[in-house]
Amino acid sequence: MAITDKLIKFYRTEVPEEAAAMMRLSLFDWAACGIAGARESAFHPFIRAQMVEEGPVRVFGGGATGVAVAALVNGTLSHALDYDDTHFAHLGHPSVAVLPAVIGLAETLDIALTDAVDAAALGVEASILTGIWLGRTHYQTGFHQTATAGAFGATLGAARLLDLSPATTRHALGICASMASGIKEQFGTMAKPLNAGLAARSGVEAALWAQSGLTAARDGLAGPLGFGPTHHGEDAEIKLPKKVWNISSISHKFHACCHGLHATLEAFGEADVTPDRISSVRIRVHPRWMSVCNIAAPETGLEVKFSYAHTAAMVLSGHSTGAIANFSDAVARDADLVDLRDRVEVVADDSLSETQAQVTLTLGSGEVRRLRHDLLSPLSLETRSEKLRTKARALLGEGHAETLWQAAIGVELDGLTEQFAQP
Amino acid sequence: MAITDKLIKFYRTEVPEEAAAMMRLSLFDWAACGIAGARESAFHPFIRAQMVEEGPVRVFGGGATGVAVAALVNGTLSHALDYDDTHFAHLGHPSVAVLPAVIGLAETLDIALTDAVDAAALGVEASILTGIWLGRTHYQTGFHQTATAGAFGATLGAARLLDLSPATTRHALGICASMASGIKEQFGTMAKPLNAGLAARSGVEAALWAQSGLTAARDGLAGPLGFGPTHHGEDAEIKLPKKVWNISSISHKFHACCHGLHATLEAFGEADVTPDRISSVRIRVHPRWMSVCNIAAPETGLEVKFSYAHTAAMVLSGHSTGAIANFSDAVARDADLVDLRDRVEVVADDSLSETQAQVTLTLGSGEVRRLRHDLLSPLSLETRSEKLRTKARALLGEGHAETLWQAAIGVELDGLTEQFAQP
Repeated sequence: MAITDKLIKFYRTEVPEEAAAMMRLSLFDWAACGIAGARESAFHPFIRAQMVEEGPVRVFGGGATGVAVAALVNGTLSHALDYDDTHFAHLGHPSVAVLPAVIGLAETLDIALTDAVDAAALGVEASILTGIWLGRTHYQTGFHQTATAGAFGATLGAARLLDLSPATTRHALGICASMASGIKEQFGTMAKPLNAGLAARSGVEAALWAQSGLTAARDGLAGPLGFGPTHHGEDAEIKLPKKVWNISSISHKFHACCHGLHATLEAFGEADVTPDRISSVRIRVHPRWMSVCNIAAPETGLEVKFSYAHTAAMVLSGHSTGAIANFSDAVARDADLVDLRDRVEVVADDSLSETQAQVTLTLGSGEVRRLRHDLLSPLSLETRSEKLRTKARALLGEGHAETLWQAAIGVELDGLTEQFAQP
Repeated sequence: MAITDKLIKFYRTEVPEEAAAMMRLSLFDWAACGIAGARESAFHPFIRAQMVEEGPVRVFGGGATGVAVAALVNGTLSHALDYDDTHFAHLGHPSVAVLPAVIGLAETLDIALTDAVDAAALGVEASILTGIWLGRTHYQTGFHQTATAGAFGATLGAARLLDLSPATTRHALGICASMASGIKEQFGTMAKPLNAGLAARSGVEAALWAQSGLTAARDGLAGPLGFGPTHHGEDAEIKLPKKVWNISSISHKFHACCHGLHATLEAFGEADVTPDRISSVRIRVHPRWMSVCNIAAPETGLEVKFSYAHTAAMVLSGHSTGAIANFSDAVARDADLVDLRDRVEVVADDSLSETQAQVTLTLGSGEVRRLRHDLLSPLSLETRSEKLRTKARALLGEGHAETLWQAAIGVELDGLTEQFAQP
């Protein structure tokens, strides 16, 4: 069965409880990233220029506008910090493309949060499936899969939410095949988060335009001149998920710094020792990271984001690595941190995978503690939600984070989106 | 010099008089196609759904809205009949992507028609240059060059009109590299004209978003993960035009039927003989057309669009082949036309190119007349404008066509766009 037929067979599937629970966590994390992202002042003139018309859909940072514009704005802002969720099969950030489309449409239709979460989970799963179908060749050639696969996921999530017929959903996917876009040449510029916003808007528009009677290719994805064949797609075999969905293996970022540091910082999380007791620290990681994030003596906040030694000193000293603001020039110069980081040694070890880290702490007492972490090790929903709440507190402050959490696990969509404004 | 640098070097170039004159003709033809296209009722629910907010930019069929939505609507409607201009180097329809962007932006800024025409000519030329740079491989792989190259042309035309700085124009082209899209899998569906509308909107948005401070890749077109390398671009060498621009060799359609019939119908245009005097007709064309548009005995209006014999009978009998409405089922059944078409023979001749046709008319008197036409033969601006005015009369009626013509050669932008409404 071709991918389009599979997606159409899939979009009305009942969403398993565990997938919906994971979607709730990603929804919470996405909103926290979006609210924090809305503070990035470089985007403000662009956002203001989009927000010319009032509408029913709330955007991060405050205000409300039409559903297509809101999807563009919310998709862009929630990816502005690059701190949102990731799926390594997808390979991309699924929530920033799908959630702005689905939550926005739900807001225009006054749909309950539970149903919106189901549609979002369906959309996220569809984006991961489309990403797997497009394959690594598509990604390596230069396509930003967050945006390309994401647009199709957003379209299918929107089709689910709008309860489009299978025939109309086929046209929606076909229309999306002429809109899905976004290249990795943009990395390091504001157009990287824009790609996510464009994908979210494409999902909204493809679904609504199909609903209004616009027709498109029968197989926009896999037809001879379709999206896959034209965009270096691999046409990889995919299976529709049964009980266990791909969404269950989504990753969340808990540290506002380079991904190469995360396994190490997680390992330190269990150290339970004060800096004054530490004699020396040895970190072992995959060799590939040595040229990426091993700045021994960072001088700026940005450099700290790429330093094993300094971030290790931060986490051992109780500085949150989940807060964007903690990666400051002052933190880079902090005498106590500099003193501790000078006791840290980083060693390449090719027996470790890229997601693994090993840490050896030698205490003044002579005691030696060995810690390790693998980013791929499973995390219970409970542990994950605790970690995401800690992250949100670091991003938004205690009060806002807690209100947002209660809203994200609640039943009222309105209660969630009213948290999007800055307090 | 890379394509991006070339386009940035080019966008403030003075527009030669002849290029501007050609742009005026394409503007007139584009507007006639758009006004006629707005009658296509299949698009009406889609258009209504877009026109929710009022704004300063008029759209075909009546009403006015914001500049981005108007670009989408006008681009789509002006390509709905597939009757707009073509450039065979480009390979695509330049006006439907560029004009909705430039004319719409000019309307928001109250810019004189003369300056808008210059910006449009610049944009059209840029789309042709980008199309040549992307090359035939890009097209053959499945990209709808009208939309892909068109989006970059629309962006550069918009940058010219908005008088963006070179640095901002670079960002605009970079943003466009994440938005330009559209596949040929859509041909035969409503998403084909939609591709043109999306390209026009992308041009408007890329320019305005760059103006609002959004940054993007330095070389969105030719960077290692840029638009060209990811979209099967050939990276063909291009030269910036000096006196003679590519726009000067634009083609216009004068018959509302398959392009394969056009050379033949042009040849008959000089026959000057009444049907009753004709004994037999022989048409010689390139063999490739025999399987495309040689239906000997069409039974419907649609089939007539693919019939040498029937359209030859129409033009010899004084039926306009420029009017959409003349390709009706009644015309297919017209006894006089059927009688004449049965005297027509069509012969494949591989000594002819695809753009050439030869016609031999044998009269009852025994006299033999030989006529020929090549679509690539140059047409003076005067002859071309006469033919376009005849076409517009067939599409819009005498009065509306003439008012539109006067407005298109005038100085007031407002006078032109007020003609966009149906009378």
